[in-house]
Amino acid sequence: MVYDYATKVKGTQGSPIRDAIVKAQGEGFISFAAGFPDPQAIPMEKLSRISQEVLEEYGIEVFQYGESIGRAELRQQARKFINMDYDVLKEGDDILVTSGSTQGLYIASKIFLNEGDVILSEDPAFSGAFASFRSNGATIRGIRMEEDGVDIAALEEAMASEPKPKFFYTIPNFNNPTGYTTSFEKRKAIYWLAKKYNVIILEDNPYGYLRSAGEDLPAIKTFDTTGHVLYAASLSKIISPGMRCALLCGAKEIIAKAVIQKSLIDSSTPIWNQLVMAKFLEQTDMRNHIRYISDIYERKCELMHETMAATFHEDVKYGKPEGGMFIYFELPDYINLQDFVNEAAKMHIAVVPGSAFSVEQPQRCNGVRINFSIPTVDQIIDGITKIGALTHRLCGDQIN
Amino acid sequence: MVYDYATKVKGTQGSPIRDAIVKAQGEGFISFAAGFPDPQAIPMEKLSRISQEVLEEYGIEVFQYGESIGRAELRQQARKFINMDYDVLKEGDDILVTSGSTQGLYIASKIFLNEGDVILSEDPAFSGAFASFRSNGATIRGIRMEEDGVDIAALEEAMASEPKPKFFYTIPNFNNPTGYTTSFEKRKAIYWLAKKYNVIILEDNPYGYLRSAGEDLPAIKTFDTTGHVLYAASLSKIISPGMRCALLCGAKEIIAKAVIQKSLIDSSTPIWNQLVMAKFLEQTDMRNHIRYISDIYERKCELMHETMAATFHEDVKYGKPEGGMFIYFELPDYINLQDFVNEAAKMHIAVVPGSAFSVEQPQRCNGVRINFSIPTVDQIIDGITKIGALTHRLCGDQIN
Repeated sequence: MVYDYATKVKGTQGSPIRDAIVKAQGEGFISFAAGFPDPQAIPMEKLSRISQEVLEEYGIEVFQYGESIGRAELRQQARKFINMDYDVLKEGDDILVTSGSTQGLYIASKIFLNEGDVILSEDPAFSGAFASFRSNGATIRGIRMEEDGVDIAALEEAMASEPKPKFFYTIPNFNNPTGYTTSFEKRKAIYWLAKKYNVIILEDNPYGYLRSAGEDLPAIKTFDTTGHVLYAASLSKIISPGMRCALLCGAKEIIAKAVIQKSLIDSSTPIWNQLVMAKFLEQTDMRNHIRYISDIYERKCELMHETMAATFHEDVKYGKPEGGMFIYFELPDYINLQDFVNEAAKMHIAVVPGSAFSVEQPQRCNGVRINFSIPTVDQIIDGITKIGALTHRLCGDQIN
Repeated sequence: MVYDYATKVKGTQGSPIRDAIVKAQGEGFISFAAGFPDPQAIPMEKLSRISQEVLEEYGIEVFQYGESIGRAELRQQARKFINMDYDVLKEGDDILVTSGSTQGLYIASKIFLNEGDVILSEDPAFSGAFASFRSNGATIRGIRMEEDGVDIAALEEAMASEPKPKFFYTIPNFNNPTGYTTSFEKRKAIYWLAKKYNVIILEDNPYGYLRSAGEDLPAIKTFDTTGHVLYAASLSKIISPGMRCALLCGAKEIIAKAVIQKSLIDSSTPIWNQLVMAKFLEQTDMRNHIRYISDIYERKCELMHETMAATFHEDVKYGKPEGGMFIYFELPDYINLQDFVNEAAKMHIAVVPGSAFSVEQPQRCNGVRINFSIPTVDQIIDGITKIGALTHRLCGDQIN
């Protein structure tokens, strides 16, 4: 049979991150592509012990259907955790437990987007979010990301344009892929613009707790007294991605709509997963826990950056992120990005071309995203040294 | 802020099943509304033991990201199980692990439906599926369900109509809410029509294994040599709904599209849940297990049916289903359905009006769905006796 698919999924591609991994498979394979947590940073033993507690304490409840909005235990613990340092969530806000924050982004686009609607996004930003927005009918307009956050003048111009954008997508902490963090001033400006033009902010914060340097900044949601900000909080990078538990937070009215969509998408996040996460949050000094895992990532980031400094050609430009899981480097204009990625893949090293994260003019992007959380210390030294040699080979070829 | 939601979610209502439960809460509350498994039928101890095995055997893998298509272990075990009695799945078919079969239905509609597309459905059928189809832009056309399956002449006429329907939704075993089972002949006819008119069959089989009488019949998918049938298999009713593990099965090309949508919706079903289910299938004689749980439901169905026979007014019509979790009864024309449901709710008894499951003319529906899997023996006797008295009160009021 010849299938007649929906128009908006016809062109949908698989993940460019996964493509990069598949292409580079082989002997001595090193992946700098995925954003998996370091196994050392996943509290496996504690989670396994808590699993036992949950099964004993809750019994049959674990194995029955649950409420679509999520378990009260997890929603309470999550609120406490999210509001640990700032009043991110207010009285009028509610929390939906989602199966990963990917699902939170999907549901947010589902409830707001009609076919052909425009949304705004930091450019570059997370490719998986773009796929989600597009699969719900969106046309994305990219707003240039600068080292201290999005270009505010360009954001205002875009918010004031017709057709009116439905929301603005932002990753204020350690933007994926650039690692850039939005400054305090720009966070306030973004919220102010949202209010002025009545555009929702979809604030995605998967990496915020993984800060190894610089000062912690409040979420944009912290300023929100008017229900303009939807906040997607993840537990994947700080506890475990395999649990598939995250939180979509916002005005009660929006969350009520989100709950209905959640009920259609998977009925509810499984109970075991929610209760294990709730108990973990309850039993853990999260400040200590976060310090412990941030230290792991700080050491790896440091090592990757040092190795780059020691081995990369001087024409390759990069900064040192204050947290997150990625370093982003820009190749000189005279190097072809795809050639570079392919040459790395031939050496069985997976890196993700920045073009995958670009909205406007991906063909002009010459950036590369490399991950330091999942490779081992040896893989970082070995892989980066090889990439460094590759930069010299390709840059040198051009100069000579 | 005043929110501007997507058109297709504006009118989306919460579940009528949940509404019925909420309305009837109170002292001595008895729910005949939900389709939860009997706690006795959930193999809790075995699942808890297997959980421990999985955590010990797989360690950190349980807590990392997984592939969107699902774990090979579960996909293999599920294929063996699904093909236990018939060759339901063929060489050319693939399996996607979904977070409940609700998600399978959602993904199927997502990949096929454009805004305004028409789909066909047995009428009545599962309200949650309708909500899913509609939230993906579908207009549903209902085809009258008869005791031996859908009206085949009406189905052919609808398949031949313009605009061409994208798929036909069917629950051939113990249709929800009626309990009707599609005959062998009608199954063959449905597949033959699907081929003739090139319309996909979306075959939903949550209850097929819960047969307490009559002869087991092959899934429509069993006849499928041309990729016309998408088959949603559930493990919720026979193992545990809380695990949120189900299977969407069909032609490799469709499943490849489904995997991409799954990656956007929740990245993957959590690993722990998948591995526990895989091991359960591997370690269990599923024929024995199914016989054990079918016996539980057979006894409850028998008891409910007997109590109805002893207490219901003779103008109320109903059959005795050969399996599933529900009995469906029709009130006489002179009784108002909503009055009946409201009166039951006043007695703290939750029943679901059949109108919730109707596509065409829900206002003319006078059926009521009652569940026998979750209430206890005492609740069945007590609740049905009260409903019986209510039928006499309402019918008698009219006759006198």
